[in-house]
Amino acid sequence: MTPLPTTLDSELRSLLGDGWRTDESERLTYAFDNSRRQALPDAVALPTTREQVVGLVRACRAARVPVIARGRGTNTTGAAVPVAGGVVVSFERMNRILDIRPGDRCAVVEPGVLNGDLQAALKPHGLFWPPDPTSAGYSSVGGNLACNAGGPRAVKYGATRDNVLALTAVTGTGDLIHCGTATTKGATGYDLQRLLVGSEGTLALIVEASLRLTPSPQSRRALRAIYRDVSSAAQAVARLMAQPVTPSMLEFMDADAVRLARDVGGADLPRDAGALLMIEADGDAQTLPHDIEALMRAADGEGLVSLDDAADEATREKLWAARKALSPSLRTLAPGKINEDVVVPVSRIPQLVDGVHALSREFDLPIVCFGHAGNGNLHVNLLYHPDDDAQSARAHAAMARVFALTLSLGGTLSGEHGIGLAKREFMPQAIDAPTLAMMRAVKAAFDPDGILNPGKLLPD
Amino acid sequence: MTPLPTTLDSELRSLLGDGWRTDESERLTYAFDNSRRQALPDAVALPTTREQVVGLVRACRAARVPVIARGRGTNTTGAAVPVAGGVVVSFERMNRILDIRPGDRCAVVEPGVLNGDLQAALKPHGLFWPPDPTSAGYSSVGGNLACNAGGPRAVKYGATRDNVLALTAVTGTGDLIHCGTATTKGATGYDLQRLLVGSEGTLALIVEASLRLTPSPQSRRALRAIYRDVSSAAQAVARLMAQPVTPSMLEFMDADAVRLARDVGGADLPRDAGALLMIEADGDAQTLPHDIEALMRAADGEGLVSLDDAADEATREKLWAARKALSPSLRTLAPGKINEDVVVPVSRIPQLVDGVHALSREFDLPIVCFGHAGNGNLHVNLLYHPDDDAQSARAHAAMARVFALTLSLGGTLSGEHGIGLAKREFMPQAIDAPTLAMMRAVKAAFDPDGILNPGKLLPD
Repeated sequence: MTPLPTTLDSELRSLLGDGWRTDESERLTYAFDNSRRQALPDAVALPTTREQVVGLVRACRAARVPVIARGRGTNTTGAAVPVAGGVVVSFERMNRILDIRPGDRCAVVEPGVLNGDLQAALKPHGLFWPPDPTSAGYSSVGGNLACNAGGPRAVKYGATRDNVLALTAVTGTGDLIHCGTATTKGATGYDLQRLLVGSEGTLALIVEASLRLTPSPQSRRALRAIYRDVSSAAQAVARLMAQPVTPSMLEFMDADAVRLARDVGGADLPRDAGALLMIEADGDAQTLPHDIEALMRAADGEGLVSLDDAADEATREKLWAARKALSPSLRTLAPGKINEDVVVPVSRIPQLVDGVHALSREFDLPIVCFGHAGNGNLHVNLLYHPDDDAQSARAHAAMARVFALTLSLGGTLSGEHGIGLAKREFMPQAIDAPTLAMMRAVKAAFDPDGILNPGKLLPD
Repeated sequence: MTPLPTTLDSELRSLLGDGWRTDESERLTYAFDNSRRQALPDAVALPTTREQVVGLVRACRAARVPVIARGRGTNTTGAAVPVAGGVVVSFERMNRILDIRPGDRCAVVEPGVLNGDLQAALKPHGLFWPPDPTSAGYSSVGGNLACNAGGPRAVKYGATRDNVLALTAVTGTGDLIHCGTATTKGATGYDLQRLLVGSEGTLALIVEASLRLTPSPQSRRALRAIYRDVSSAAQAVARLMAQPVTPSMLEFMDADAVRLARDVGGADLPRDAGALLMIEADGDAQTLPHDIEALMRAADGEGLVSLDDAADEATREKLWAARKALSPSLRTLAPGKINEDVVVPVSRIPQLVDGVHALSREFDLPIVCFGHAGNGNLHVNLLYHPDDDAQSARAHAAMARVFALTLSLGGTLSGEHGIGLAKREFMPQAIDAPTLAMMRAVKAAFDPDGILNPGKLLPD
């Protein structure tokens, strides 16, 4: 790694003052993300204004120094790791909620606001912002935007991209652009704001977002459906999604996930579940019972073993706690984990899960599947011992086959985690050459010198 | 207009056979759209396969001849008028529904399928595709995609852009690209498919679309709320949109629109209405009464004159018929009409309508407002005598002021009609120079030689 040019260092120090850090301990703090990969940046910037971001990008562009936007680093793909060095721009100081307009169902925020803090501020207005990744309490809105974060509620309320009205951003040329309008409809020019969502900091740095809000439902109720096998559960998912009452969550666990939720997570679950669906509806007190009835009718069918209405909040919470504990509890099976979040059309879930279990046998490694079935978005967790070279190699070979299987079923590499470093090499399998070339051309239009988050999302 | 190069003519004749037309009567048929503007193309192509579209674009690119995609020409902005000559590509022969997958809530179609034909095919599956422009019976899905068409249902179900999963398209370089995946969630690379929606044929020609479907509600019910004045009605709109039951339609009429609906459209409406809201909810028989109650509570408030539940379908249909007849009935006021579809945040509707009425007085011209209030998307109809030069000039000056007013209220030029030729000159007021430059760079990435629908959307 080459050190920053001295002139750039002093220029940015005078631009950012206390928000410019070059000592190694600070740089180490911003070297990694939740992917457990790491690379030391040359400096860390903590801007407080959009003008500072513009100045920083222009200065870095002139010196051809990489600029890596960062929220709170909760992403799992390495998208925030500065693999080519350069300046990490952490938005932790641009964390103001600028406006909440309940009548317009709109909130205007800086990118560093935590998702959880925003939800708390919206609560008194009877509104919420739908994206609810597991990290919601400590991930930033800017990070959610960069990754197009989802979560269980996406089945009813959409992912991040579906819940944004307008963005203000700084491109790779240091130009401040205004994309979209704070209206729920628009047909004025190209839709640049949805293009920026999910672009992982490779096209522009978002400095302000107008978010689309949804009125909070008054109440919710959960069902727990246990099926003889995966295929029966998957057919229930298709039935649930083909009728008019869209569940507010529709989560799937395979038999291994159920076992872990019971043995490690402490959930009260039977020993013989072939698969489990957690089905939730939300609404008001009058309509909810009818919606739950409709969901119960759709959940019922061939292979259903039991269907319970978790009527009280404590039972519901306990089941969700076990679901949330699944990810960490996987480490009890093996210390190494590859967690991918492939997505397929809902009707293809049985083939995906069956195929993954066949790969588990072929490669002699545990693979546990659970996730957001209503979107066909499954977390495929491949477990192995990282110190065992043969196991590591098998794990990575098996994951490549999981991707190939997903693509053969009309699905794609990622439903909500993104590409980052982790899946970049698989992009040419998922996206054909002319389309990848088009993405590269779009990248060049926003960032002609390639300074924004180099080495991410698009393959070399 | 220069005639087509002879070599191009013969190349495309052999590529398209009977689907290549150069006689003047055929060219005249494709010279105009619903904007009433017209310009003669040099030729008309009626492709039946994507391979023909690829071949055509490549040949036209080599000869630097414009290519103008066309659905059924129902748009009102001139977006399909070949102002620079060239080849109009009408997708009327690529009109197959390729697949309907109810469990995936997905339909795969060619662009020439009529919206109405698609809805009829979906009905037996209990599904529908949400975009419902007034032209739905005779406009094509490809045209809906090109314009990001909306309609009254968009308030609950979103506009076209919100209801697309994947697109296959031919860029200005004649490359076939595949954008998006037929899954309801995705975080794999840049979101090119939403960028193509609403781009009015200036970035690529869509040759296949995977559409996101929604289960059909079992029933619907409508309310008619009459208010003392526009401000009371607009405040009711904000209340209606801030509570959890989202109406399936929320339409607004100002006093002049109510009068026209009564006197010309034959609707049973009072003489003293200051403003009217048509509020509709859909759902199943059990939940609908509760939803209607919630909407009635929200509609009630300061300035409400009457609130009627159009319980029977005949009453409901009669009111909608009067609403749909509004646009043609405007011609009874004056033969010339400028119909714009500006959009503002919902809370700004009172200022917009008050401001428009002030402009009506200032310019001494009738202006009638109605439209999709739940999205803040109002159709502002400016009426004048086109043969009267002074009136024409005043009408155009007033419309420029309507746009300026809209922008000052945080809104934008178009909610669902698009830009085309009609609003192109106003784009620099709506979109700042760096953002317009970014849009031009995106255009250049897709269409480096500028052959796709030149003279549209972006200003010179």
